[in-house]
Amino acid sequence: MSSSSSRPSLASKSPIGVFDSGIGGLTVAHAISRAMPAEPISYFGDTAHMPYGDRSPELVQSWSVRIAEHLVSNGCKAIVIACNSASATAAEAVRDAVGPAVPVIDVITPVAAQVAAGEARRIGVIGTRATVGSGVYGRCLRDAMAHQLGGASGRSVEEWATPLLAPLIEEGWHEHALMEPVIAAYLEAAGWSADKLDALIPGCTHYPLALDALRKVLGPGVELVNGPDIVAAAVAQRLADSGLLSTSGSTTHHRFAVSDLTPSFADSARRFFGSGIQLDRDALWD
Amino acid sequence: MSSSSSRPSLASKSPIGVFDSGIGGLTVAHAISRAMPAEPISYFGDTAHMPYGDRSPELVQSWSVRIAEHLVSNGCKAIVIACNSASATAAEAVRDAVGPAVPVIDVITPVAAQVAAGEARRIGVIGTRATVGSGVYGRCLRDAMAHQLGGASGRSVEEWATPLLAPLIEEGWHEHALMEPVIAAYLEAAGWSADKLDALIPGCTHYPLALDALRKVLGPGVELVNGPDIVAAAVAQRLADSGLLSTSGSTTHHRFAVSDLTPSFADSARRFFGSGIQLDRDALWD
Repeated sequence: MSSSSSRPSLASKSPIGVFDSGIGGLTVAHAISRAMPAEPISYFGDTAHMPYGDRSPELVQSWSVRIAEHLVSNGCKAIVIACNSASATAAEAVRDAVGPAVPVIDVITPVAAQVAAGEARRIGVIGTRATVGSGVYGRCLRDAMAHQLGGASGRSVEEWATPLLAPLIEEGWHEHALMEPVIAAYLEAAGWSADKLDALIPGCTHYPLALDALRKVLGPGVELVNGPDIVAAAVAQRLADSGLLSTSGSTTHHRFAVSDLTPSFADSARRFFGSGIQLDRDALWD
Repeated sequence: MSSSSSRPSLASKSPIGVFDSGIGGLTVAHAISRAMPAEPISYFGDTAHMPYGDRSPELVQSWSVRIAEHLVSNGCKAIVIACNSASATAAEAVRDAVGPAVPVIDVITPVAAQVAAGEARRIGVIGTRATVGSGVYGRCLRDAMAHQLGGASGRSVEEWATPLLAPLIEEGWHEHALMEPVIAAYLEAAGWSADKLDALIPGCTHYPLALDALRKVLGPGVELVNGPDIVAAAVAQRLADSGLLSTSGSTTHHRFAVSDLTPSFADSARRFFGSGIQLDRDALWD
């Protein structure tokens, strides 16, 4: 990690560092930009190594720590791990590397806390093999429930890997007629009928683009948890707590870097951020 | 690259080096092992970086050259680039790096030569974004046709990217009921009805597992080209031409290495090679 002395000062006008294995984390970056319009964002998408969801925990940890150090050495005042697979397997390693001076917010802890505080008793989680294999949502939810009135009693958490959803969304098929049967096939394999779940956590930053298809398959009775908005609120709270919220009222300038740049990544970025953005190649791994 | 003096001698009993971005190239390794049972194979699957099909040509070249040099420095007598994306973008760079002393066989040139020598006049090619974006099948086919009687006159080649097929096959869904509608959606987007094509080249080493689904969607009138068998025959010919064919009649021992090892890769390996094999982690990128 960078030594404290070599770091730029953590001024409140410094950017929030947001990273993901690729472009899916732009859904989180976008939610942050909507919640805190005065905060500049420095985004890093590791498109040279995506997807993290199929890799070993050791590899995801090694890449995540290097990226977080890179963002901090470039002056970021906080780090958002905008990738469920990296949050599941590397959040502790990233905190060890760049914290506690730099707040590190993952995308799992705030979501688990909010769902645990809610009414849902039968909770399903879908995500990549890495996320589901780690069992981290179950642990975080049960930990958070233990602090609620009544604890985890009578509440259940089940997790199921749905590795095809991210490639389908990246291919732009989230509104395709085949999206719903693929989701239905996974839910059937998981044994989750609509009357078996109270809430579903779409545990991958790609999945917010597929909320309509998930809603249609699950029906109106299942709460669909909106991860990016919950994470953006948690980031705002952590910045406020640390005295790092921007006091500027001026227009902000975001930076979006990727480790490998292709026309297809540029196209996808538009879909995930919700508007046209400029991607630059960052030679971190060269 | 390794200097010639540091290379082990290219004895005929040395292994054939076969590499792919991941595990799909095992379909080619298996075809080679069937065609030449006396030849030991040293396989390298770059599971830390898969899939190559979405990356930039520069990145695929850099990884491919490093892997080929690694295999040669470990004593391989020939290199098979068992990945269409790497064959499309990096074959020349690999030949520059390890040839001409070490024969380099890609998976595109022999297939294009065989199809060009056949009767098919309207030829379709499906593959990853990297393979189709390179246009290499079209170039190779037209070059090969130019040497045939009648040249390329009246013959056509169309290429279409089908990036979801590899993830579906990796998920084990190649016999799933949803495989056929996904293929049909791509063929419709490409404008290819069954009566529009004489032959289809499945231009990705994953696709041989989906031949049944492709056959059902295309009907019996379209020739489905079997890439791995054609490539295995080309490898045998090149080894014979170079005096490198193994003269041993004894049982061979293959080695299968991957740059990242997870239970899911181990499961997939069984499907792609057609029988249980032992994967070992190779710390090439550490």
